[in-house]
Amino acid sequence: MITLNRDAPETLYQQLFNYFKEQILSGAMKAGKRLPASRALADELDISRTSVVNAYDALESAGLIVSRERRGLFVVDKLPILYAEWMLSDGDFIPAAASHVSESQEFPSLISLSVGSLPVDFMPVEAMRRALNAVLDRDAGAALGYEPTEGYKPLRRAIADQLHSRGMNVKADEVLVTGGCQQAIDLAVQSLVPPNGILLTTDPTYIGLIDIARTRNLELITIPWSDQGIDLAGLETLIQERRPHLFYLMTTFLNPTGAVLSMQQRRHLLTLAATYQLPILEDGVYDGFDYEDAGLPSLRALDESGLVLYASGFSKTVVPGTRIGYLISSPQLYSRISRVKQAADVCTPGLNQRAMTELLRSGQLNAHLEVVRHACKHRRDALLAALQRYASGTWTWTTPMGGLYIWVEIPSNGPTAVELLQKAADLGVDFAIGASFSPNANWPYHLRLNFSSYAPPVLEEGIRRLWTAWLAC
Amino acid sequence: MITLNRDAPETLYQQLFNYFKEQILSGAMKAGKRLPASRALADELDISRTSVVNAYDALESAGLIVSRERRGLFVVDKLPILYAEWMLSDGDFIPAAASHVSESQEFPSLISLSVGSLPVDFMPVEAMRRALNAVLDRDAGAALGYEPTEGYKPLRRAIADQLHSRGMNVKADEVLVTGGCQQAIDLAVQSLVPPNGILLTTDPTYIGLIDIARTRNLELITIPWSDQGIDLAGLETLIQERRPHLFYLMTTFLNPTGAVLSMQQRRHLLTLAATYQLPILEDGVYDGFDYEDAGLPSLRALDESGLVLYASGFSKTVVPGTRIGYLISSPQLYSRISRVKQAADVCTPGLNQRAMTELLRSGQLNAHLEVVRHACKHRRDALLAALQRYASGTWTWTTPMGGLYIWVEIPSNGPTAVELLQKAADLGVDFAIGASFSPNANWPYHLRLNFSSYAPPVLEEGIRRLWTAWLAC
Repeated sequence: MITLNRDAPETLYQQLFNYFKEQILSGAMKAGKRLPASRALADELDISRTSVVNAYDALESAGLIVSRERRGLFVVDKLPILYAEWMLSDGDFIPAAASHVSESQEFPSLISLSVGSLPVDFMPVEAMRRALNAVLDRDAGAALGYEPTEGYKPLRRAIADQLHSRGMNVKADEVLVTGGCQQAIDLAVQSLVPPNGILLTTDPTYIGLIDIARTRNLELITIPWSDQGIDLAGLETLIQERRPHLFYLMTTFLNPTGAVLSMQQRRHLLTLAATYQLPILEDGVYDGFDYEDAGLPSLRALDESGLVLYASGFSKTVVPGTRIGYLISSPQLYSRISRVKQAADVCTPGLNQRAMTELLRSGQLNAHLEVVRHACKHRRDALLAALQRYASGTWTWTTPMGGLYIWVEIPSNGPTAVELLQKAADLGVDFAIGASFSPNANWPYHLRLNFSSYAPPVLEEGIRRLWTAWLAC
Repeated sequence: MITLNRDAPETLYQQLFNYFKEQILSGAMKAGKRLPASRALADELDISRTSVVNAYDALESAGLIVSRERRGLFVVDKLPILYAEWMLSDGDFIPAAASHVSESQEFPSLISLSVGSLPVDFMPVEAMRRALNAVLDRDAGAALGYEPTEGYKPLRRAIADQLHSRGMNVKADEVLVTGGCQQAIDLAVQSLVPPNGILLTTDPTYIGLIDIARTRNLELITIPWSDQGIDLAGLETLIQERRPHLFYLMTTFLNPTGAVLSMQQRRHLLTLAATYQLPILEDGVYDGFDYEDAGLPSLRALDESGLVLYASGFSKTVVPGTRIGYLISSPQLYSRISRVKQAADVCTPGLNQRAMTELLRSGQLNAHLEVVRHACKHRRDALLAALQRYASGTWTWTTPMGGLYIWVEIPSNGPTAVELLQKAADLGVDFAIGASFSPNANWPYHLRLNFSSYAPPVLEEGIRRLWTAWLAC
């Protein structure tokens, strides 16, 4: 019996998607089971047929159901690897073949915990294929021609709508489509920081921002971000003394630490920005990539001063390879930044923009994101459990509520992260060293571990190797 | 009877493609005619079956033949619009329906001769669709993940191979894949010209280069490029006096004039570059987009000093919307430029790179380019004929041997291009004003006309409107 709640924050199709997902994952709906015809189900539930079709599309995109021509939609025979892997240790639903997979598991010779993105087997290949073909059917050559520098208008609208649902009052005219979030950051920096100007960021910070500062010959100054958050008193002094042109920070699930800036600090930071008329570039690339509803309103959502630019994209959390990001600026800055984009690469590929629009509009992107978040949360827990098993009481680490990374601190009376990495690589595991994320090469005893790339047993083996390497240093 | 020449510069499959193309376009092979089975034809001609399959693929991509499942390949019932349009006035082959199309012709309310690219109905939609699907079949999620900043290795190899066939000795390791040719130029400029540095170019020059200089706050100095070529004596003085950091120029089919730098000037320019150790950025975006085999070896091909960088791409001539370009640099500069690319946008979309690799490797891109060149040549001739009909003896213009543009000069005792544009727009035609292509706003009595966008009757109507507007000014 399906019960829908018209007053719930989720749309009807999302509720329907969740219902069937649970039914299939719990085993209540078995392999080969046929789903109700969309028209009949829509009548029965008294909802639009579109809602049913959208839910079915999302289930198909997630690899849970399959369409057999002229016969209807059926639960797949074999759940996608994605599901099989995390369910392996979920316990509540073990497919017949799974225990076999587990026993015959061979571990990779190198377990790489150093990468900066999701694994490729999490990519929504079939959904993307359908979107690309639909776009070519509909738009033909126009899908392969130039787009306006600002971006494909329906994508700008779809992005504005998505941000609206996160409490951000953004108009389509304020959205500039970019080549991934990296280009959004680079364009904002180029537009707001003059040559030899001063760029302020946190320490640690996103490694791509350090690249930009070096390439652009900017002076990069930093304010520490510790367990207690950003040192706001120190920040105010720094602003007074150095008068930076722009403050870049990642407010939610900071790469590398996973930290979330507190609500109190967000408000305080906005007050400082208004007092000193300091423009802020907020990187929201992990916003919404959340395991425990730990996300807070973005600075951009809270801001009333017009000083906050917001950069984000779909690279870190869904499809890196299409390179679709965006920058939200203000009417005053928009045309200046667009001119920089025009000079940089004319426009972002139209085919990719149009396919992404389809994925967003159909709800398939969000449905896929939900599946990926579920898998990532499970993998995070597996990595945390492995750390607990081997290194409890000796190493310390963060428990991130979202994003892809755990930030581990090893004792400062032992090997540095750089020393550990050499030994670890010999034993078949790697990680990103903490100092990479600091313009000042701070954090010599910190490691960033990406927990998304492997199934739980591999993650556990990785931590076993890492611990063994540390003991051997 | 098919005759192949193993010593000809064209490959066997290209010869085979040309043979069937001529047969179909001339009407010797009629609609519905079945093509020989590939194995039988390969045996008969004593060539590899792959050559036959490649030729058939290219014919299919060009819309000349169609595959009917399990029955074979057939000449299409209806030739694609592309062919119908130019054959309308070719005279030698008029499809049954064509004269009807011609009579019922309605002209667009605005005939836009101002655009900077090919029309979207020239895009290889079906070839791109097949390439995208093939890539997703083969690579799955890897097609949607990050690529190396330098580019997808097989694409770098395919580009190096293509340049080899144009006499350029380029290694795959010297190819950096970029977001269109525009990004290739921008990265080279950023890497070689310091902030507030001096960038030298021709007058007129590519409009995107002017954008880059303005955005990057560079001083842009120019040397005139007249009917007699570049003023090389003036150039030497300018180099001595101003010591520019980089000389950018488009050597073949200069946008906007269509000019080709002579062989003598190419050699002289290289001598100057070597004497003054002046790096040259050669824009080869129209190289190979040639109607009369007027192309000359690129500076890069002639260079022995290592001072020439070469930027090009597939945007202007085949598929703008995938935004695939490339920069050929030297081992000394490569890593510096890659770091700028990394900071700018991490990498060019992998899906697009992989699809382009398929199009290049299969020969479909070159086959399609041949079709497009044929159509463009026909349209160029139609625009030239229309100019001759209306404006002969009053206006003067270039006869470009390639590219997309005709450069028209109107008398300097009449309206300026800007004044003419206002009147022309009222009468339903536009163009790009000459001054747009000059950092000094020179060329007030010049117009750039794109002849690729319309079928001959529409081009003639456009010139009729333009002439009427000029008479009315």
